[in-house]
Amino acid sequence: MNRNFASDNTAGAAPEILEAVAAAARGRAMPYGNDDWTRRASQRISEIFERDCAVFPVATGTAANTLGLSLLTPPWGSVYCHQHAHIILDESSAPELFTGGARLIGLAGEAGKVSATALEAALAGSGKGDVHHVQPAALSLTQLTEWGSAYSLEELGALTEVARRHGLKVHMDGARFANALVGLNCSPAEMTWKAGVDVLSFGATKNGCLAAEAVVVFDPALAESLPFRRKRAAQLFSKMRIVSAQLEAYLQDGLWLRLARRANDMAGLLAEGLESLAGVELVAPVHGNELFVRLPAKMAGGLKAAGFLFYPWTFGGEGVYRLVTAFDSEREEVEAFIACARGFEE
Amino acid sequence: MNRNFASDNTAGAAPEILEAVAAAARGRAMPYGNDDWTRRASQRISEIFERDCAVFPVATGTAANTLGLSLLTPPWGSVYCHQHAHIILDESSAPELFTGGARLIGLAGEAGKVSATALEAALAGSGKGDVHHVQPAALSLTQLTEWGSAYSLEELGALTEVARRHGLKVHMDGARFANALVGLNCSPAEMTWKAGVDVLSFGATKNGCLAAEAVVVFDPALAESLPFRRKRAAQLFSKMRIVSAQLEAYLQDGLWLRLARRANDMAGLLAEGLESLAGVELVAPVHGNELFVRLPAKMAGGLKAAGFLFYPWTFGGEGVYRLVTAFDSEREEVEAFIACARGFEE
Amino acid sequence: MNRNFASDNTAGAAPEILEAVAAAARGRAMPYGNDDWTRRASQRISEIFERDCAVFPVATGTAANTLGLSLLTPPWGSVYCHQHAHIILDESSAPELFTGGARLIGLAGEAGKVSATALEAALAGSGKGDVHHVQPAALSLTQLTEWGSAYSLEELGALTEVARRHGLKVHMDGARFANALVGLNCSPAEMTWKAGVDVLSFGATKNGCLAAEAVVVFDPALAESLPFRRKRAAQLFSKMRIVSAQLEAYLQDGLWLRLARRANDMAGLLAEGLESLAGVELVAPVHGNELFVRLPAKMAGGLKAAGFLFYPWTFGGEGVYRLVTAFDSEREEVEAFIACARGFEE
Amino acid sequence: MNRNFASDNTAGAAPEILEAVAAAARGRAMPYGNDDWTRRASQRISEIFERDCAVFPVATGTAANTLGLSLLTPPWGSVYCHQHAHIILDESSAPELFTGGARLIGLAGEAGKVSATALEAALAGSGKGDVHHVQPAALSLTQLTEWGSAYSLEELGALTEVARRHGLKVHMDGARFANALVGLNCSPAEMTWKAGVDVLSFGATKNGCLAAEAVVVFDPALAESLPFRRKRAAQLFSKMRIVSAQLEAYLQDGLWLRLARRANDMAGLLAEGLESLAGVELVAPVHGNELFVRLPAKMAGGLKAAGFLFYPWTFGGEGVYRLVTAFDSEREEVEAFIACARGFEE
Repeated sequence: MNRNFASDNTAGAAPEILEAVAAAARGRAMPYGNDDWTRRASQRISEIFERDCAVFPVATGTAANTLGLSLLTPPWGSVYCHQHAHIILDESSAPELFTGGARLIGLAGEAGKVSATALEAALAGSGKGDVHHVQPAALSLTQLTEWGSAYSLEELGALTEVARRHGLKVHMDGARFANALVGLNCSPAEMTWKAGVDVLSFGATKNGCLAAEAVVVFDPALAESLPFRRKRAAQLFSKMRIVSAQLEAYLQDGLWLRLARRANDMAGLLAEGLESLAGVELVAPVHGNELFVRLPAKMAGGLKAAGFLFYPWTFGGEGVYRLVTAFDSEREEVEAFIACARGFEE
Repeated sequence: MNRNFASDNTAGAAPEILEAVAAAARGRAMPYGNDDWTRRASQRISEIFERDCAVFPVATGTAANTLGLSLLTPPWGSVYCHQHAHIILDESSAPELFTGGARLIGLAGEAGKVSATALEAALAGSGKGDVHHVQPAALSLTQLTEWGSAYSLEELGALTEVARRHGLKVHMDGARFANALVGLNCSPAEMTWKAGVDVLSFGATKNGCLAAEAVVVFDPALAESLPFRRKRAAQLFSKMRIVSAQLEAYLQDGLWLRLARRANDMAGLLAEGLESLAGVELVAPVHGNELFVRLPAKMAGGLKAAGFLFYPWTFGGEGVYRLVTAFDSEREEVEAFIACARGFEE
Repeated sequence: MNRNFASDNTAGAAPEILEAVAAAARGRAMPYGNDDWTRRASQRISEIFERDCAVFPVATGTAANTLGLSLLTPPWGSVYCHQHAHIILDESSAPELFTGGARLIGLAGEAGKVSATALEAALAGSGKGDVHHVQPAALSLTQLTEWGSAYSLEELGALTEVARRHGLKVHMDGARFANALVGLNCSPAEMTWKAGVDVLSFGATKNGCLAAEAVVVFDPALAESLPFRRKRAAQLFSKMRIVSAQLEAYLQDGLWLRLARRANDMAGLLAEGLESLAGVELVAPVHGNELFVRLPAKMAGGLKAAGFLFYPWTFGGEGVYRLVTAFDSEREEVEAFIACARGFEE
Repeated sequence: MNRNFASDNTAGAAPEILEAVAAAARGRAMPYGNDDWTRRASQRISEIFERDCAVFPVATGTAANTLGLSLLTPPWGSVYCHQHAHIILDESSAPELFTGGARLIGLAGEAGKVSATALEAALAGSGKGDVHHVQPAALSLTQLTEWGSAYSLEELGALTEVARRHGLKVHMDGARFANALVGLNCSPAEMTWKAGVDVLSFGATKNGCLAAEAVVVFDPALAESLPFRRKRAAQLFSKMRIVSAQLEAYLQDGLWLRLARRANDMAGLLAEGLESLAGVELVAPVHGNELFVRLPAKMAGGLKAAGFLFYPWTFGGEGVYRLVTAFDSEREEVEAFIACARGFEE
């Protein structure tokens, strides 16, 4: 039985994805994305987003985020994001590399969400037009946030309105896009371009693929340089069909939503179970497949001793942990976790 | 029947590789290379090279080449290579990106091989130590070369001796490493570090993998910065086991050599068949799985009309084409090509 | 009469500097720093700092800061500085450009000084050794700070001790080095390498030169790459003697200290005069030639109406302004400012 | 008596320039180019070029060239230039740094001039639109070339026509712009934008300034990003008036043309004298202030022994040397050189 609640990237791949890869790997096909899988995956994404998008499959979230951002900021620009955003905390200086030296500026905000007030304040002092200062260029929002919460459509709209008013483009880091979508119960279009998003890092790896992400650009004119940027970033795969086949299968017959729903349901179950325990406290709302909980020290220790894996979340303060479920999480795993925790109830 | 002789990157993947990926994708494992597949693949490479190597799986040849080079040159350095090298002609300005701005300098040489004389001449005028000039830092050799030939061990030794004498480090672009190895019938160690190579781009994608390459650093001290460089280059895969499992299976029980031998044998057969035709001329020696042939215009046209795919090789002059076989090439495909060509014999 | 208190960079040049330039510009000399002026300026700096330093004249403070930092951090490293530091707020993304993409991390602290506590806290959560995170590489301290205060020798020692313990190198932005030195009344050595500083941006432009700064590296081994970096940064002047002659004259017979003392004295006079006025408050200690004062709105308006130039200092809150004196400030200018202010006393 | 014929950058500054600097350095002025000198210099350049130009003073030729090029190529672009161009041979990898990693491609051509045939051939094989290849973006021409010759207006027109037809922008490295202009006896407009040049590095340092160059952009819309690029490149001087005052004085009352004419005349005299000697051969036409001559070994040795300074020009072959005159060269120096050479006539 799986006892790993450390991250959804510890999961393997969904069987449907593996079958698609095996099928795609048979026989010959033209390289570098001039293949049917890539065409179909691209078309499928446009359908799902109800708009002709420019779609660029890549193989890591870091590549998707940094290539996406490179479309939105010059090397002397700045990108606003939450101070705990993955792009500012967990991607080394890849954003600087792929943007040619732009700067990330971290903003405070509850539950991992950029606060519109903090954004306005930062922009007010940003020195737009003054060559001495980095120039406000983009806003990057993570959906699900790094605290497991989802921006509501209203929150997204309010933030992108501020951005638009100040001439910023908007990027969405959708490493857990499907989990947020299922959590909000809205359409992909509503959660992105209809809410003011220009470029999306569409994540699929965490939710059942092997290694498949896509940069989705809602205004194709904005993506003109991306073919060159992707090649130069060493993300143009010769056997691109292998990446694209994953995306195609992922989006086939709602597989992606089923996988995300499973993960979210298990997170919900886990949250419900843990909340009922004395001394346990959720420190952020659970909108997807991540929980942030304060656990009594004995309980945390006991769970670890029982072989459960999970990381402390230092930004939450002493005793706060992150628990993540995945597309393959089983009810019995969650119940085992809760049962074990209950044994250490205060 | 496959009629695609355009490139070995139009082939899919070997069944053994696909099985390994499917097996690795089951269940949970720690991410980012902290997994057993990565450890085993790394160890296996060290065994095969008879030396403790630092091994960094990545997913494209461009990533392997440019990350490897970034260890060998400062941003104000220069990398000498053949004027038709893949790194200078086919990787956009990825080398500049990942080295921080170093410069590639293309040298002439027969059959795709850097000429030691040209290298000596370039180094004599390089202005070493003079801040106005880019500083000679590395030599990059492609094995198989872009003209399908292999450097002999003596040629490698002579070139790396020049390099060493001038303080250059040596990189080998081994996108078709196995094909060259089988062609030369020597050991991996002999073709690399024993011949003076410091860093190898160990290619596996073209020879039956999905997307798997490795930067192999023969002196691990030289690789100290590579973990950071790889992450920053967006090449640190969360589900790294998927890449590593390919490498492990590739190197298991000599699979890689069997696959390369098949490709080379088919190239040999093709060369033999074509050479016997009037008006056909090989313009470079065939040491691996690539042929460079001058075809009469009618023959080239006839082959294309029959559905065979292959590219002109403009560096060879008018009427010269590149033909590439792969690990999955079939004898009947080759024979069909020759038979078709024979129909257009002059 | 000068009424410009906006910045010391609005001043021209000291006559001694101009004479030296005119003298140096006569006749022929070898270019690119192979000249006697450069040798003498370099030697003079070593004498003043009581140590063999590697000295690199450049022509802007941004060049000195960013080239200096480029010696101390890899492209995946981070540089800690005060959140109001010039390098993070006023140099566009030049630091990213010249370091190859390293990241600046701004820390809080009173009166423009990095707080040792904030530094320790940042380092504790920095993820040293973890490839996902930028790697702590350097600490940059501004002396005078951007709030006009000077770190005491004890404060410098305490901060560099933290840095050293965590493996950070230390940079000092000495755009107003002479003003701080005069303010502290210590030796150049005491305020730099004896206090744990590795690389100094030695500023001379603001204090009476035309355009002359120098990167001073206290351990010459650390500067090995700097000749190449400077050339590549377009800061190797063909007629380098023009820059070096400024530095030589600046350091001749204590000119630099006399110039700084004048500026500091005038700032002291200004502070004294303003402090005596009702409603005026100094918001940071005055250790050099800058004052940060809260002025009643009417007083600020009246001064501006009278033609006095000065900027608001938004980090100080509503109604706070920066006033700067220079090497050429006259007592009557200061007295005129105070007299005018007095007319608007609350 | 000056015996230095090594380079015009060994000369000092013209008295008029020094006076202008001294005058500009008096009193207060707003920094960073918000001053009258900068406004006037900019306006003067527009007048001289008979067109509203965007003008950006900088302090080194490397800065002017690389910032100019950065406007014309994306990081994945290529810049064609002569294989002996200063930008490819003498500026380290500054072009890569300031363009974000674009590539220079050196072309052959007689007497330092890019051959239109070589340019056409290079463009034909450049792979425009193919992401694997660097994308042809710009052509850079040096006027005077590095071989001392000047492109005629017809040659310029023919080359820029090729460039325009292939979508390339055109840069001119005018480090010795005035010398070429005087040599061609045409107007600044004719030699630049009327001939198809988009961006000019307008050099003044070599011809009597201390350190003053300007990026001149003939279509100001093309320069939109240059204010940010210049600041980020550490070339925005706080006391910018010092650089601008040089440019203003340089262009006042035809000073620049007088200075260049003197240098050219002296070069003409030198050429005439040397040509008359047995065994001496000019290897390139003399259109400005540089000579490239083959000298008998004894003559070269004798001149050096007599204290004359000059460099071998290895691209010219054995025994070829470069001789450079400057704005301050005296007739007696030239005559002394010739007389000395005559003593070693074969």
